[in-house]
Amino acid sequence: MGNPVLVNATRGDQVEAQHRGSIAVCDPTGRVIHQWGDINRLVYPRSAIKVLQALPLIETGAADAFQLSQAELALACASHNGEKIHTETVRHWLDKLQLTESDLECGAHSPLLDSSSEELIKSGQPADRTHNNCSGKHSGMLTICQHLHEDTHGYIERDHPAQQRWFDSVGEMCGVDVRVLPWNYDGCGIPVAAIPLQAIATAFARFSTPDDLPQARAEAASRLAEAVAEQPYMVAGEGRLCSELMQITGRRLFIKTGACGVYTASIPDAGLGIALKIDDGTREAAEVAILGALTALGQLHSDDVEALSERLRVPIHNTRDVITGYWEVAEALR
Amino acid sequence: MGNPVLVNATRGDQVEAQHRGSIAVCDPTGRVIHQWGDINRLVYPRSAIKVLQALPLIETGAADAFQLSQAELALACASHNGEKIHTETVRHWLDKLQLTESDLECGAHSPLLDSSSEELIKSGQPADRTHNNCSGKHSGMLTICQHLHEDTHGYIERDHPAQQRWFDSVGEMCGVDVRVLPWNYDGCGIPVAAIPLQAIATAFARFSTPDDLPQARAEAASRLAEAVAEQPYMVAGEGRLCSELMQITGRRLFIKTGACGVYTASIPDAGLGIALKIDDGTREAAEVAILGALTALGQLHSDDVEALSERLRVPIHNTRDVITGYWEVAEALR
Repeated sequence: MGNPVLVNATRGDQVEAQHRGSIAVCDPTGRVIHQWGDINRLVYPRSAIKVLQALPLIETGAADAFQLSQAELALACASHNGEKIHTETVRHWLDKLQLTESDLECGAHSPLLDSSSEELIKSGQPADRTHNNCSGKHSGMLTICQHLHEDTHGYIERDHPAQQRWFDSVGEMCGVDVRVLPWNYDGCGIPVAAIPLQAIATAFARFSTPDDLPQARAEAASRLAEAVAEQPYMVAGEGRLCSELMQITGRRLFIKTGACGVYTASIPDAGLGIALKIDDGTREAAEVAILGALTALGQLHSDDVEALSERLRVPIHNTRDVITGYWEVAEALR
Repeated sequence: MGNPVLVNATRGDQVEAQHRGSIAVCDPTGRVIHQWGDINRLVYPRSAIKVLQALPLIETGAADAFQLSQAELALACASHNGEKIHTETVRHWLDKLQLTESDLECGAHSPLLDSSSEELIKSGQPADRTHNNCSGKHSGMLTICQHLHEDTHGYIERDHPAQQRWFDSVGEMCGVDVRVLPWNYDGCGIPVAAIPLQAIATAFARFSTPDDLPQARAEAASRLAEAVAEQPYMVAGEGRLCSELMQITGRRLFIKTGACGVYTASIPDAGLGIALKIDDGTREAAEVAILGALTALGQLHSDDVEALSERLRVPIHNTRDVITGYWEVAEALR
């Protein structure tokens, strides 16, 4: 039967593309508060769990040992645009670790932000590994390795402690054994496991209500949440929903995207976690769907909704700059 | 209930994204020979009907009056990459018409081919209207205007004869009255109508069996089919499925993509037309689906299938150049 249509892209008065998906909304006990579609399905959360993967960075004492800044902590949880502010912060961080760009084991890719990519093309320089949107996550993993005097070579491999650590932190937060779940390699080269959507939502409910967590975990979660709230631009960058939404909502909301149509969110005041997957992986649809879900759940203030009006119903322009339609929530999310 | 899943994108042994859609396979009488999903739905064919929109270019005598080359005729039916070979051919064509790039009323956009786009960025020149993937279609429309001494200004407007002409040619081929169908503006600024998928497939069956058409229409269809078969690179370009497939199959097959997950195809020997729409509009899924449909219908030779193996099951690489999964046909198309 399939998941419900969550988002439509229109042209004139016709739907030109439709996007199905599922959304789990859970409390910290794992209870389902609301759901759209199948939330038992296994989903690769991709970059949407970076903040959970970064918990060991605090818990091992590595962040303190290297006196990581709020910007660096936010970058550890980021899928950044590869803007100068992002890559230079990563380079400075690697300096502190006495490592270089070549110690990052993610691949290189062009900056996600078009203007940064064009600047690089004009400079004649190829993209390097600091431009990889995951370079902050990798720097975080390297920070722990250096702190614990582990061999950094091969830190991206599944059996390296750098990966086993987040299997623990993510597994504990999700309440699942990550090691027995199906897995493969993520875009940046580290392993990624397929996790039930409901478990991911539960993890983000727990992340937003640290009082129920063991003390060290609670402190780590609070510090990362605080860093991201202080430095939302480091988590994504110009024109990106994660940065823009958290700039508007401040500490009321944590939100993070993952490749192939994934979003996670935490709402501390409500004690809720959300995990969302668009079946077909379309980024624009995932953006509208997460905002639609937050609105449907009453978690956006009227000021937020006003500030985000062109994010909730996104005009589609043609090459003559005429609006031909909109990305907008479908019936199920109205 | 929705349309069947036609294409999956996998990561490891899990499906990470799935793409639903519908496919109509018709004969020239409009009879449905095969179908997947809902083929009565209205679909914006976008660029997939350019060859039908170009019929008046031959029928009015404009192509002969300006002695259009096979490359120019193929470009009239193209969604080209904006490579030098495409833009220079368009510029030369406009010269013949005593018009310039500024007479094109499509908007400018960066070349679809990354290397052409990068070259342009390095040169410091902005993209112009010849780079628009539709600049050949627009040049064709301008050719008729010049031949018939019509005002070219505003030729993209719905009530201009340049548009009304293809309402007739497309309407006759599809067997529908295009004027009463829902419409809006296409990416390049001309109107686009939403047409039942079955009618689009029927039009392409008729296109491939010109013997059943009125003589002038039959000759126009044959000349365009011949031009495209001779100059498949002009229809799209480097790395593009339309060009690659027609380079392999020659006159056995006509194929054309349209934005937002559309494909059309004509198979002259079988007297069949195909029209395909991926619900979510994903290009990669549409490419795999049209090849999957052609294979399922027995319309690709074993040599074709071998040459296209990485098009039928498309490896997905991560930034470390590891294959993490595949775009591949789903159960419904196996």
